[in-house]
Amino acid sequence: MQFPQLAAFTGGDGLIRVIGHRGARGVMPENTMEGFAFTLNCGVRLLEFDVVMSRDGVPVITHNHSLTGSIVRDGAGNWLQGAEPRVSDLDWAYLAEMDVGGLDGRSEYGQRFPDQAFLYGARIPRLSDLCALIAQPGYQDVHLMLEIKSDPETLQDASARAAVVAAVVADVRALGLTQRTLMHSFDWALLAECARQAPEMPTSFLTQMPQNAADIGEDHATPAIPGLTEADASPPDLVAQAGGALWCPYYLDVTAAQVARAHALGLRVAVWTVNEMADIDRMIALGVDGIVTDYPGRVQRRLLALDHVWTEQAAMAV
Amino acid sequence: MQFPQLAAFTGGDGLIRVIGHRGARGVMPENTMEGFAFTLNCGVRLLEFDVVMSRDGVPVITHNHSLTGSIVRDGAGNWLQGAEPRVSDLDWAYLAEMDVGGLDGRSEYGQRFPDQAFLYGARIPRLSDLCALIAQPGYQDVHLMLEIKSDPETLQDASARAAVVAAVVADVRALGLTQRTLMHSFDWALLAECARQAPEMPTSFLTQMPQNAADIGEDHATPAIPGLTEADASPPDLVAQAGGALWCPYYLDVTAAQVARAHALGLRVAVWTVNEMADIDRMIALGVDGIVTDYPGRVQRRLLALDHVWTEQAAMAV
Repeated sequence: MQFPQLAAFTGGDGLIRVIGHRGARGVMPENTMEGFAFTLNCGVRLLEFDVVMSRDGVPVITHNHSLTGSIVRDGAGNWLQGAEPRVSDLDWAYLAEMDVGGLDGRSEYGQRFPDQAFLYGARIPRLSDLCALIAQPGYQDVHLMLEIKSDPETLQDASARAAVVAAVVADVRALGLTQRTLMHSFDWALLAECARQAPEMPTSFLTQMPQNAADIGEDHATPAIPGLTEADASPPDLVAQAGGALWCPYYLDVTAAQVARAHALGLRVAVWTVNEMADIDRMIALGVDGIVTDYPGRVQRRLLALDHVWTEQAAMAV
Repeated sequence: MQFPQLAAFTGGDGLIRVIGHRGARGVMPENTMEGFAFTLNCGVRLLEFDVVMSRDGVPVITHNHSLTGSIVRDGAGNWLQGAEPRVSDLDWAYLAEMDVGGLDGRSEYGQRFPDQAFLYGARIPRLSDLCALIAQPGYQDVHLMLEIKSDPETLQDASARAAVVAAVVADVRALGLTQRTLMHSFDWALLAECARQAPEMPTSFLTQMPQNAADIGEDHATPAIPGLTEADASPPDLVAQAGGALWCPYYLDVTAAQVARAHALGLRVAVWTVNEMADIDRMIALGVDGIVTDYPGRVQRRLLALDHVWTEQAAMAV
């Protein structure tokens, strides 16, 4: 196998991988060390998360381009009010003061995750914080689905993309994690830059068809692979042509024929973000390699109910 | 205040305590160190759990009198089959081999908690294991609602009750936790024995009216306070007369008048086990002191939505 980390994202007969979305957003605050720790403690060892670069060049783990009022409190615990500052306009020292331990239940976004615990004093992690954790003994089976967020205002030009990718790759290399990381993005140009700068890491292509895009309270998923929305487009073929190793379609878009085509092309297929029982069951039936979910416990339980497991270790234990 | 630990279980204006039921049974395997760690990491620092004594006199943390097939796997990972052995007939060394990291989804009990994570290799803890954890620095604000399970086959006679209580009290005293523990039970005679042997710990009386008893897959809650089911019974009066400090009614039983009566009698009121949004909201409106729940994150979020907090620390932070 060309990239050793692909094994951890490869399904098989009765084996489908569980990938914790932003940790386990349904249970613990997203993109926090507390949430990652919970996910890992559940026996879910594949972490999806989002990276944005601060003004002073620090890759930080947060989803939106801006500090969003429904997620972020200031150091005194008050919800951010008014205009939402862009992460790329803020220094790490400032970001480190923010509290991202919970959701504002008055917001539409907050109401999407009514079981998410509410913590006081949870901070935005740096990418290097998460890398440092999983570089420790006991975490050697942990793999990263590292999504680089593509800010349309700042990543239009090649030099800006190169700078972000360089900073991200430096953090991953510094902790010796290149063989445990996928570079993951909606942004075809960013992934091409990743492959150029870090050919030792495979690329993972997110897609979402416009007709199914409906994630309330989140930044839009732009830009996508060129040609994706054309009538006769085959997303797995486009991903394979772009050099991707993994295709990550939105779960409402994907068909059995596309999964088969992706596998025929040598791609792994992970679907995002699958939270409801019936959708989980449908994805299991499709034979995807991995399921990205906000509720890893729920997916574990559906897998077991349908005679599946999520790691070889579990398969041995059963 | 007579017992310092009662402060941690006392509500107030805009303050209702969250008590993690068996840790956080809705999210993590019940009565496991992994589940307790999750609950504590959510900022829920009051733990409810169940203690049964092994044949060789070790208080262990598990709910049912017998090892239940829907919860327990053997050391090889196979679900227990056939007759369910009584915990009181098994030695600790045997119990320590069992795997209680998940629920069998084929069972009615397992289907009640579809989001509970499935772990491999989670063990039945001893009471002393949990006491050792919370005796450590950083856990000084953690308090225990220690339920002693009353096995009708083994605890009919006073000497058997005395032996169980002695073993439990010894573990709590050994780690210096008597000022952070409530002795909690449905069994009036057991609680009287607790008060006799360990007068430094307050007693907490569980009640459930027979007409509302409907917990599938669990041992029944017997025996209860004498007189509880008589037509004109006032449960809080019975608890107060029995020397209780806290009354813990089943949430479907309790009325606003009873909460007021309990408070007038100087009792704290915690309700069990409250998991659904509408029920949580109703309990908040009743002004109980504490809510015992399988979903601590959900209760945190409902409290915040209704302008409540669950600790003074949180109140300060808000």
